[in-house]
Amino acid sequence: MKKLLFGLLVLPFAVMAQPAADAAMIKKISDEILSNGKAYEQLYQLTKQIGGRLAGSPAFAKAVQWGRQTMEKNGAENVWLQECMVPHWVRGGADKAFVILVDGAKTSRELDVLALGNSLGNGTVNGEVLAVQDFAELERRKDEVKGKIVYYNNGFNPTNVKPFISYGEAGIYRRSGPSRAAKYGAIGVMIRSLTESTANDPHTGAMAYNDSFPKIPAIAVGPRDADAVWTLTRKSKISMAMYTNGHFLPDTIGHNVIAEIRGTEFPDEYITIGGHLDSWDVNEGASDDGTGVVHTIEIMRALQAIGYKPKHTLRFVLFANEENGLRGGTKYAAEAKAKNEKHIFALESDAGGFTPRGFSLQVSKEQMAKVQSWIPLLSPYGAFELSNDGGGADVSPLNRTFGIPVGELIPDPQRYFNLHHARSDVFENVNKRELLLGAVNMAGLIYLVDKYGL
Amino acid sequence: MKKLLFGLLVLPFAVMAQPAADAAMIKKISDEILSNGKAYEQLYQLTKQIGGRLAGSPAFAKAVQWGRQTMEKNGAENVWLQECMVPHWVRGGADKAFVILVDGAKTSRELDVLALGNSLGNGTVNGEVLAVQDFAELERRKDEVKGKIVYYNNGFNPTNVKPFISYGEAGIYRRSGPSRAAKYGAIGVMIRSLTESTANDPHTGAMAYNDSFPKIPAIAVGPRDADAVWTLTRKSKISMAMYTNGHFLPDTIGHNVIAEIRGTEFPDEYITIGGHLDSWDVNEGASDDGTGVVHTIEIMRALQAIGYKPKHTLRFVLFANEENGLRGGTKYAAEAKAKNEKHIFALESDAGGFTPRGFSLQVSKEQMAKVQSWIPLLSPYGAFELSNDGGGADVSPLNRTFGIPVGELIPDPQRYFNLHHARSDVFENVNKRELLLGAVNMAGLIYLVDKYGL
Repeated sequence: MKKLLFGLLVLPFAVMAQPAADAAMIKKISDEILSNGKAYEQLYQLTKQIGGRLAGSPAFAKAVQWGRQTMEKNGAENVWLQECMVPHWVRGGADKAFVILVDGAKTSRELDVLALGNSLGNGTVNGEVLAVQDFAELERRKDEVKGKIVYYNNGFNPTNVKPFISYGEAGIYRRSGPSRAAKYGAIGVMIRSLTESTANDPHTGAMAYNDSFPKIPAIAVGPRDADAVWTLTRKSKISMAMYTNGHFLPDTIGHNVIAEIRGTEFPDEYITIGGHLDSWDVNEGASDDGTGVVHTIEIMRALQAIGYKPKHTLRFVLFANEENGLRGGTKYAAEAKAKNEKHIFALESDAGGFTPRGFSLQVSKEQMAKVQSWIPLLSPYGAFELSNDGGGADVSPLNRTFGIPVGELIPDPQRYFNLHHARSDVFENVNKRELLLGAVNMAGLIYLVDKYGL
Repeated sequence: MKKLLFGLLVLPFAVMAQPAADAAMIKKISDEILSNGKAYEQLYQLTKQIGGRLAGSPAFAKAVQWGRQTMEKNGAENVWLQECMVPHWVRGGADKAFVILVDGAKTSRELDVLALGNSLGNGTVNGEVLAVQDFAELERRKDEVKGKIVYYNNGFNPTNVKPFISYGEAGIYRRSGPSRAAKYGAIGVMIRSLTESTANDPHTGAMAYNDSFPKIPAIAVGPRDADAVWTLTRKSKISMAMYTNGHFLPDTIGHNVIAEIRGTEFPDEYITIGGHLDSWDVNEGASDDGTGVVHTIEIMRALQAIGYKPKHTLRFVLFANEENGLRGGTKYAAEAKAKNEKHIFALESDAGGFTPRGFSLQVSKEQMAKVQSWIPLLSPYGAFELSNDGGGADVSPLNRTFGIPVGELIPDPQRYFNLHHARSDVFENVNKRELLLGAVNMAGLIYLVDKYGL
């Protein structure tokens, strides 16, 4: 116990033992990225010249070509496309919803809504609304559900300082809410958008049906309209009409875009850095996950620009299908296993291009202590906070396949869910220096893992 | 030495000895602010219903009344206005500048400019441009200055991770650049705006003339136009016209707005919390310093709402004149001295309403160690980083007068100088949750200072 305590106390000062060379190298990386970084201009291209790029869409195919060319122009030793089948969900036009009856009297208040990703729709559904706060109320009132449109009012808990916790708590309404209502005979579902934004933009995102129940249409409503609907239902009976046309086309060919800088000492050992190239269809996919894409390319560019020769082979991966299938990340890990590759670490950026605050990892205690000892080298650039809450979605199959440590950049999270899956996720809502600092902190961590292992 | 080292090692764990009651109280404050905070709505009123409010202006007088009423409505035990004379600079209309000749050929490119605050103008000034990178180049080329308009190209150093360091380095061009050029016979000065923004908005801000030299007009140019001017002057001789009409009206009466919650144990010992009510005239003064104003009122509201009874008297101050005179902060300290008040700590918010990262203090080593020991109580809400770089401008006279510790909230600084003194400093560029978290962290620190002293 005494020994352990000593270890804990000494850790923050382990940096004193680090060669000053590490601090100098990270400063060199930072200076290169903050002075010559191309991430912001590349994000402009991806968001404004290509835009929304759901897996399977023509825009996604354009993004793959853009990714390959941009990596080739920015220091990759070799770039290739890794084919994988991806789902091909299409929205089928504009989603609409109206409150049409209040206590039997005709009205026509339009709500700002978006169909949930993967949901199925076939035109208009009309019905009385059963508004519930949460699943507990749904269960209590299950006998009232049949033939109605269920509205879930559950939102983010504002007292959670970290919005990702709120998203984790509320996300189940988007993913499972439709089937849980369909189980009791609901004909449609509307959820409060997963956000604390003060704007009325609705937020889409993936749902999944339980095959045991009817596949009813499902929409998210903007938060101000959600407030209005909830208030109305507290004093009146209301009916509404939902109009959606989401459907699946056959699975189609997608691609992970992969670039490498070969290792000098351990060329057959891999460190992966990545973000996902796909986005939802309703926005420019700037913060989700254009910023992760350009972080990935920027780290590669900057390490080459300063002449860094990694010991291990660095793989830079733009994943094909995070949003509604995870087929890209799954394929990457499967192929790594099939080829018997040795992977030692993987780091993702999929939480936006805001000022970095730290990393979320999935590592052993010893590995966590090692990363903690590097924090004094990284914190001058923003990253001070570590958690063991898991890496990003696209690197999780590597963790499951090989048991290797994985991680994710954690930028300041307060603005993320204002934009996430909403129309407002556009280039203009990304700040150039915040974006570049994300690449600085990720590159610093990659440098340390490459040098010291994990 | 051994003892000192032990002290350093033990400090991060001092929190273990803190009563869990402190953690519970700060959580209670946070829950109150994040659930019921009024700061965002109050900021809307201040920015949209009053807007830009330079000291001495009619809008500033309206802001004083708004401040008094808002404090009265939000839990102050008493509110009063503290009179002080303030400068009354007026812009005198729209500022303009044109490149009018390039190598003798007429052209008419308009530049986006703002006259510097406190600068004097009397219509149009025409002249050849001498573009210099910095003061060193000005000195080398001083014989070329006479009769010309000097353009300083000096900008922010992008490799500084903390933009306040860049502002500190580059700020001297705004404050002293005009007189340093006038010394050698310049007829006007234009500076590159003090920002790293990718937008072209010019940024105003205070300058001061050296009375030994002619008081020539001075403007700041938007960063993209600055790039264009610099590029032009690398290959051509250019002339330009500046049109400004800044001038001073007689000093006028302004007010600090002061509210109190009286202390239960030490009612005659004061802790001050404040922000400045004035702003520049060209924007809504949202982040500079509407956010500091509403932080101040929110802390007062929240502490009253949860029934907190401070040991010391808490003073909540909306200062009258930070931007171009510091008369409000100076008056507050002078009156405290005249009344022989005992002040123990003062905390300001004047760096925006972004997610908190820590505090900048002006304290002794022992005081710093004490605040450091509280960081584990505050870091769950954002504040993890302390520096001894000084408190805010408005509380600095208290420090100079009484030698007391002072501090300033340090929010994430990356976006601040995109907005600072520019037209873009509007309500829409403030995020509700980030704003509220600033109040949470300040209130937490105030609670700890009130309970344990400093």
